[in-house]
Amino acid sequence: MAFARVAIVGLGLIGSSIARAIGERLPQVIVTGHDASDTVRATARNLGLCNAIADDPVAAVADADLVILAVPVGRMADAAAAITPGLKAAAIISDVGSSKAGVAEALARVLPHHVVIPAHPVAGTENSGPAAGFATLFDGRWCIVTPGPDAPADAVKAVSDFWEALGAKVDIMDAAHHDMVLAVTSHLPHLIAYTIVGTASELEEVTESEVIKYSAGGFRDFTRIAASDPVMWRDVFLANKDAVLATLQRFNEDLTVLQQAIRRGDADKLEDWFTRTRAIRRSIIAEGQDDAAPDFGRKH
Amino acid sequence: MAFARVAIVGLGLIGSSIARAIGERLPQVIVTGHDASDTVRATARNLGLCNAIADDPVAAVADADLVILAVPVGRMADAAAAITPGLKAAAIISDVGSSKAGVAEALARVLPHHVVIPAHPVAGTENSGPAAGFATLFDGRWCIVTPGPDAPADAVKAVSDFWEALGAKVDIMDAAHHDMVLAVTSHLPHLIAYTIVGTASELEEVTESEVIKYSAGGFRDFTRIAASDPVMWRDVFLANKDAVLATLQRFNEDLTVLQQAIRRGDADKLEDWFTRTRAIRRSIIAEGQDDAAPDFGRKH
Repeated sequence: MAFARVAIVGLGLIGSSIARAIGERLPQVIVTGHDASDTVRATARNLGLCNAIADDPVAAVADADLVILAVPVGRMADAAAAITPGLKAAAIISDVGSSKAGVAEALARVLPHHVVIPAHPVAGTENSGPAAGFATLFDGRWCIVTPGPDAPADAVKAVSDFWEALGAKVDIMDAAHHDMVLAVTSHLPHLIAYTIVGTASELEEVTESEVIKYSAGGFRDFTRIAASDPVMWRDVFLANKDAVLATLQRFNEDLTVLQQAIRRGDADKLEDWFTRTRAIRRSIIAEGQDDAAPDFGRKH
Repeated sequence: MAFARVAIVGLGLIGSSIARAIGERLPQVIVTGHDASDTVRATARNLGLCNAIADDPVAAVADADLVILAVPVGRMADAAAAITPGLKAAAIISDVGSSKAGVAEALARVLPHHVVIPAHPVAGTENSGPAAGFATLFDGRWCIVTPGPDAPADAVKAVSDFWEALGAKVDIMDAAHHDMVLAVTSHLPHLIAYTIVGTASELEEVTESEVIKYSAGGFRDFTRIAASDPVMWRDVFLANKDAVLATLQRFNEDLTVLQQAIRRGDADKLEDWFTRTRAIRRSIIAEGQDDAAPDFGRKH
C-alpha cells in the first residue's frame, strides 16, 4: 500500500464505509475524517470511525498521502478549496463521485498543482449517513478509476491498489465514457424510479395508502432506489446532464413503441420484447452482480 | 373451510404455490391439478404437487367445490371453456389473474350458470413454472377479491376464507378499481422496467457487457421484474389496456417535468421531488410490504 495516511472528507454512506473498510482490511493505515456537518462529525466520533475526526478540513488532510472527497458532486469544488491550504505537495486527491467528467474538471481547476485521480466505486444502498455504512460495501463491486491523459501511472496504480485492497474490482475508463455508461446503468434507472414513485403518490383515482398497501406487485422495487439521498442525486443529474438527457431520449422512444403496441393490441411485439429482457437478467446473475434468490432475498 | 376438494388449472408459479400452500396449511383438502402443457404436468408429478395431476381438464375439475384458474389472463376464457363439461353445478370458480374486469366478463360469458368469484393474490417472484412455487408465497401478502354485484355473500366469504387460510390478507374491491390500483402499483412498474432493460441493451455507445458489469448502480433492480413471465405480462397489458395507458400518460407528464428540470438546471425542483419520494419508501416498510434491510437483503 502506497498510502500510510488517508483522509476522508465527507462521512456519509460511502465515506464512512471507506473508513470502516480501511479499519478492517488495512489496519496499519492511519485515517483522519472530516465532515462539514457538526452532527455527522459527532455521529462519526460516537461510532469510532477513523483514527481521528477533525473539525477543520485543513487539519484533516495535513500529512495525508491520499485524500478522498466523498461529498455530493456539486460540492466537490468547494470541498477541494477548503482543504487546499493543508495538502502536502505529494498528496494524491481522489473522490467517489457518480459522474466523472465534470468532477475531474472542477478538481483540476481548484487543485492545479496536485495529482488528481478521480474514482467511482459503483456500490451503495438506499440509506445515507455515517451510520449506514459498512465495511464490506465494496466487496466484489466495481470501482471505476478515470485518470486524465496526463495522470502519472504510479498514482493511478496506487489508487487502483487501494480500492482492490478494500475488496473492489478496478476498471480504468475515460471519464466521458464512464458518464455515458453510468447514465444508462444508474442515473436513468434512478430518474425513472423517482418519477414513477412521484406519479403514483399523486393520482386522484388511487390513494397513497392503496399504493403502499399493494406495492408488492412491483412498485416497491422502485421505491428502494427512489429513497436514495436527494442531494446526492440532484447533483448527479445536474453534473451528468448531457448523458442523462441523451439516454432518456432513447428510453422515451422505446416507451412510445411499447405504448403503441399496447394501444394496438400487438401481442407479438410485447412478447418479443419481454422475452429479450429476460436474458439480460440471467447475465447479471451469472456475472455475480445480483443475487439469483427470487424476490431479492426478501423473507418468504 | 367450505371446500373439501379444490382443482387448480395452471401449475406455474402461482398455481403450484397454491398447491403447496394447501398441502401445508389445509392437509385435509384434496387437490387435483391440471396444466395444458405435458411438460408442466410431468414436472408437477415429479414434484409431488397435488393429490393427483389429471391429463384431462374435465377430469381435473370433477367433484371440485372450488376451481382456481391460474393461467395467463388471455387464456382464462379458453381454460374455463375446457373445464365446463366437468364442473359440478355447485362448484365455485375463481382465478388469480392480475387484471380483473376483463377476466370477470370473460368468465361470466363462458360460465353463465356458475358462481364466479374472481381474485388476485398480489404476490409473485420473477421466476416461472411449477418448480418456482413455494408454500409461503402468499404469507402476509394481500389477495384482492373482486366479486360482481350479484355474487352470493357466502361464496365471497368462502373464497376469502380460503385465501386467509393460505396466509394472505383479503380485501374486497370493485374490479374496475382493482384494475386502476394494479395499473399503478404493478403494471406500470413492469412496463417501465421492461422498457429500460430493452433500451439499455440496444445503445450503440455502451455495450451490453458494460451494462451487465456495472448494473449494481441501480439497473439490476429493474432487471428483476423485467425477467417476469413474458406471456403472462403480454396478456396483462392487453387486458388492462385502458388503465395502463391512463397511468402511463401521467408518468410521461411527470417525466417530462423532471427532464425539463434537468435541462434547465432547476436544482430545487429536483431536490423537492426526490425528498418526497423518500417518504413513500418509509411507509411501505412500516406497512410490512418490504424489507428495511438495505439493498434488499443482498449479501454484503
